[in-house]
Amino acid sequence: MSSLADKGWSILAEEVSLPIAVINENRLLNNAIWMQKFSDEAEVKLAPHGKTSMAPELFKVQLDQGCWGISLATIAQVINAAQHGIQRIILANQLVGKLHMQLLADLLSTSDLEFYCFVDSKENALALGKYFSVRNISLNILIEVGVAQGRCGWRDPDNIEPLLEIIKQFPHLKLCGVSFYEGVIHGNEAETEIKRFIASISRLVSKLYKRDLFDLDQIIITGAGSAWYDIVAQELMSSQSMRNINYTAIIRPGCYLIHDTGIYQSAQDEIVQRSQLACDVSGELISSLHLWAYVHSVPESGLAVIGLGKRDVAFDAGLPTPEYFYRPGTEKPISVDKAWQVISIMDQHCLMKTTDNALLRPGDIICFSSSHPCLTMDKWRHIGLIDDNFVVNKTIETFF
Amino acid sequence: MSSLADKGWSILAEEVSLPIAVINENRLLNNAIWMQKFSDEAEVKLAPHGKTSMAPELFKVQLDQGCWGISLATIAQVINAAQHGIQRIILANQLVGKLHMQLLADLLSTSDLEFYCFVDSKENALALGKYFSVRNISLNILIEVGVAQGRCGWRDPDNIEPLLEIIKQFPHLKLCGVSFYEGVIHGNEAETEIKRFIASISRLVSKLYKRDLFDLDQIIITGAGSAWYDIVAQELMSSQSMRNINYTAIIRPGCYLIHDTGIYQSAQDEIVQRSQLACDVSGELISSLHLWAYVHSVPESGLAVIGLGKRDVAFDAGLPTPEYFYRPGTEKPISVDKAWQVISIMDQHCLMKTTDNALLRPGDIICFSSSHPCLTMDKWRHIGLIDDNFVVNKTIETFF
Repeated sequence: MSSLADKGWSILAEEVSLPIAVINENRLLNNAIWMQKFSDEAEVKLAPHGKTSMAPELFKVQLDQGCWGISLATIAQVINAAQHGIQRIILANQLVGKLHMQLLADLLSTSDLEFYCFVDSKENALALGKYFSVRNISLNILIEVGVAQGRCGWRDPDNIEPLLEIIKQFPHLKLCGVSFYEGVIHGNEAETEIKRFIASISRLVSKLYKRDLFDLDQIIITGAGSAWYDIVAQELMSSQSMRNINYTAIIRPGCYLIHDTGIYQSAQDEIVQRSQLACDVSGELISSLHLWAYVHSVPESGLAVIGLGKRDVAFDAGLPTPEYFYRPGTEKPISVDKAWQVISIMDQHCLMKTTDNALLRPGDIICFSSSHPCLTMDKWRHIGLIDDNFVVNKTIETFF
Repeated sequence: MSSLADKGWSILAEEVSLPIAVINENRLLNNAIWMQKFSDEAEVKLAPHGKTSMAPELFKVQLDQGCWGISLATIAQVINAAQHGIQRIILANQLVGKLHMQLLADLLSTSDLEFYCFVDSKENALALGKYFSVRNISLNILIEVGVAQGRCGWRDPDNIEPLLEIIKQFPHLKLCGVSFYEGVIHGNEAETEIKRFIASISRLVSKLYKRDLFDLDQIIITGAGSAWYDIVAQELMSSQSMRNINYTAIIRPGCYLIHDTGIYQSAQDEIVQRSQLACDVSGELISSLHLWAYVHSVPESGLAVIGLGKRDVAFDAGLPTPEYFYRPGTEKPISVDKAWQVISIMDQHCLMKTTDNALLRPGDIICFSSSHPCLTMDKWRHIGLIDDNFVVNKTIETFF
């Protein structure tokens, strides 16, 4: 990480241009440790989804805590992470397209990268098999299983023969395991459905294992985003169908590292409520990302126009939440009235409703938390890491 | 613009990594010319809002057609544009914050930049007056007038004395005119309300002019986003209150250059319907921005999972629209069935409903148009400029 001048840049002393996105370094580390502890206790491996931050320096914070590898969503992300020294990557997606296959084959043939990708169709298996055979390079694949009305993934694990037929034709396709993403299952019965889904995957693994179709001794089974990693870990580790099989269960949550005060805090609240294991891990996940912005105008009583917009912060899973108020020149930020809230957001501004008697004025500063860190991170090419005194001591680069 | 290899990169030959955002250069130029013609015919000046693209190379396309200057939304944008040689800038926003004032004062004192910013409060006028007096640098300001329940802007033009009192205290604050943004007025009566709003602004200008409060001989009056520029131009140029005043009317649409097939196409349709002038300008605005992405999976009949997500394209004003289908190896893209549509979008994927019998398969390519170019542009650090054969011949850099 690039170190700034000795004393850093103080947000309170107005030494940085606002709006700015910053991450509290202590909270970030807390979150990295918490999830690693959970994974260790649950006896699963952790391959955090790196697409959330696309900041290789943050991947290293996760690896330093002991995570197994990094998950990514696109070939561009994979190449970037590999260039930054990440050595074990799951592409939690299909590898599609001539140029992408070529770029990946080049990478595999010139590095020690350990790489896995998802395969969920005959057409894709055929394209990969042909391409990697010609290049004479082995490709590790995980069969992705999906649910009806979901996203990717082979729909019927009981009728997977057509896909296996293709894979078996190509010795360069190394079948290393099975993958899934349960996060597309919603509704009141989600937990039950997710358990049923994972049970069907365990049976599939068992079936493929008995037929000796895996090219790896230690089979990989990977699932889980940030909302159901507890259930996924529990169901995979307690599966009866797989009790005699040598396998590694890998979870892939991504948002926990930065966390939020929105959808992922809600998901985490539910996890801690239902999972004794999560409850027993000391500490908790804490939202680490804040946006600081100026009040531009207070044109009506109870209405403040803030210089923070869709260009600066995620807005797709709830609008940003005002946390602190700070008037330059005063001692320190103070928590805002719970009644203050962002009521609308535009490209470069948002409107914040305040209590009528709030004595806000242009030039005041508001600090916001937010929901859905992925879509805030991708707005910024650099993110400041701050200490508890709101001083930016380092900046990290993102690669979107 | 950086020239690529002689022959460029062909999207159809899969020479670029997908997803990719590209702009058709001919369409872009068409749009730049169209809006300049409209402005010339309407006898208003054009200061296109540069925040849409934040691509200085595109600002130059607009300046080459004769636009008066560039509008921007933040000091960071202003500094960037000035560094790229833009010489006349309207900050269509308040200049707030100690560091921002310092950065701008530094810029003004070391360049020939002609700069204007909006002022809409006593507190901000006071802060600017004090700062620029101490620095002994003049600052050109435009009083921003706003509407109730709108965004920024002084609310009551008939009671503006308190703001004027502050401005008059500081000879370094040069009052150059009046500004507004009518785009926050919505509803069935929008047109009528906008006309009434502009009439109130014209009266204010007349009043200030009679009191000799402007520091500029040729007063500036500026308004208009991409949805009402025709009405703004018409009302400002036909104003009875200002008939004896020497003024320049400046419109600030931003999205027209790239245009879209969503909210701005709808707005433009209405403009062409109601404005004889817009109707008389030959040609029309054409959506120039496309996103190309792979089909990753066709897991169910009628459902395709595409490698294009919230990380790649705007989704706040309508989801992307599939336009062309292309199978690598075939001759050329073909228009898609109108029934195909994107039904949901996630961070890195979207789901596209197709006709049941569509023979899509993984590895096929879909080309999408979109709605709201601002929020697609800010996803990309580089954008390809393509010709009519879908070959990327140049790339332009964005500075978000």
